[in-house]
Amino acid sequence: MRWLKFKASGKTSWGIVEGDQVIAVDDDPLSDWQRTARTHPLSQVKIELPLVPRTFYCVGLNYLKHLKEAADKRGEIPAVPDRPEIGYRAQNALIAHDEDVVIPSFATEKIHYEGELVVVIGKKVEHLTEQTAMDCVFGYTIGNDVSERSWQKADRGLWRSKNADTFKPMGPWIETEADLEKMETVVRVNGKETNRFHTNDMIFGVVPFLVELTKYFTLWPGDVIWMGTDGASPDIKHGDVVEIDITGIGTLRNRFVREGQ
Amino acid sequence: MRWLKFKASGKTSWGIVEGDQVIAVDDDPLSDWQRTARTHPLSQVKIELPLVPRTFYCVGLNYLKHLKEAADKRGEIPAVPDRPEIGYRAQNALIAHDEDVVIPSFATEKIHYEGELVVVIGKKVEHLTEQTAMDCVFGYTIGNDVSERSWQKADRGLWRSKNADTFKPMGPWIETEADLEKMETVVRVNGKETNRFHTNDMIFGVVPFLVELTKYFTLWPGDVIWMGTDGASPDIKHGDVVEIDITGIGTLRNRFVREGQ
Repeated sequence: MRWLKFKASGKTSWGIVEGDQVIAVDDDPLSDWQRTARTHPLSQVKIELPLVPRTFYCVGLNYLKHLKEAADKRGEIPAVPDRPEIGYRAQNALIAHDEDVVIPSFATEKIHYEGELVVVIGKKVEHLTEQTAMDCVFGYTIGNDVSERSWQKADRGLWRSKNADTFKPMGPWIETEADLEKMETVVRVNGKETNRFHTNDMIFGVVPFLVELTKYFTLWPGDVIWMGTDGASPDIKHGDVVEIDITGIGTLRNRFVREGQ
Repeated sequence: MRWLKFKASGKTSWGIVEGDQVIAVDDDPLSDWQRTARTHPLSQVKIELPLVPRTFYCVGLNYLKHLKEAADKRGEIPAVPDRPEIGYRAQNALIAHDEDVVIPSFATEKIHYEGELVVVIGKKVEHLTEQTAMDCVFGYTIGNDVSERSWQKADRGLWRSKNADTFKPMGPWIETEADLEKMETVVRVNGKETNRFHTNDMIFGVVPFLVELTKYFTLWPGDVIWMGTDGASPDIKHGDVVEIDITGIGTLRNRFVREGQ
């Protein structure tokens, strides 16, 4: 099932996408919802951010090629993580599918995308085991972990490099039926393919992360975990359109614009 | 004005603390609220977490003594920050005044407190200036940035060392009238004073942080910024009670218990 948060006729609702139609429901997907008689052509609605997570988790280094490329740039030997570790991103930075990533006028040209699988949590859980871990997953969406690399290099943390307003596109919807094993992530800039990788080729996959995190944390409905990216991005310029496609989920598309241009 | 979120007779409400009484209001402090006729003795209500922030900002190193002590432990020369930089904490870790900090059974004995001033944002703002910055501050509360130092040392980030469930006590209430210049932070363990510092002796104060952050971020009502701490903590053991007192705000008190003891 494909859950879309959308606006039509001035009203924001949750709906189910079936083919090229959206069927509005009367509540949110984690409630006791019912279909309504209201339908809209998908092409006619404004796609909204699916949710603002309570806690916004994000994996840093989780693919070998990305890790190697990052280490090469620093002139270092890549250190492969020996256990799952997590970071955080800021809710202020989230935007929806088809909304613009706004590059601050004082940012450098080192603006990169990172196409990521996003796990959406559906239950309040702690102390998960390998056997129970996947029960808390409501579905999947797509994230673009936009980064300003000169700030990332200059700063003590990732605060502005990854969390400036609009730097976290997420969407377009939440897919509950997608199969991890079959997923491929493809990134295109202005329609031209720039990255392709097997989404599940992670150093630590979804299950090990859920097990490790819930040794320490309670996960809450609506929390999201961005799972990291593979490969590297070219510098993204004013006017470029970045599409991230994950098999079985869909395509997250955002234009990048430089402030004041 | 002192804003308290509390539970009484099974009902959670916002109220105003006046002396030893709480006057319930009919909505939240950022709304068009009205006082009700319902009052409770403060000692008879359950104090709740004032809010779950949309984004949970936290300053790492913002006092000279704390910076020096941290560097000394690593055998390094302290590097004083040359500009305000921010980090994040996780919403899952928040607990209220008088709730227990639960130390996981597999944590080491290096459990430390950090007593911090918390700035509560009341308006949606961006691009603040020195002149306008304080207009967005709704009030202040108190935070305890509990840390497991062996994890902090071992990990790539602060994920479990500072964000395990219950590691972020915040409260007891939000004070809107407190004067930054007059604040002193005093920490007591089991009633015995262990730290004392002028709260506003920050390397970068509230205004420089608000100006710098809003170059990149929109701040939202209910966001919080924890402002860092001075000095160092002894190791906190099972059964210890930590009180953090800030002049003009109040006292945040929490007992520490070790899981399974």
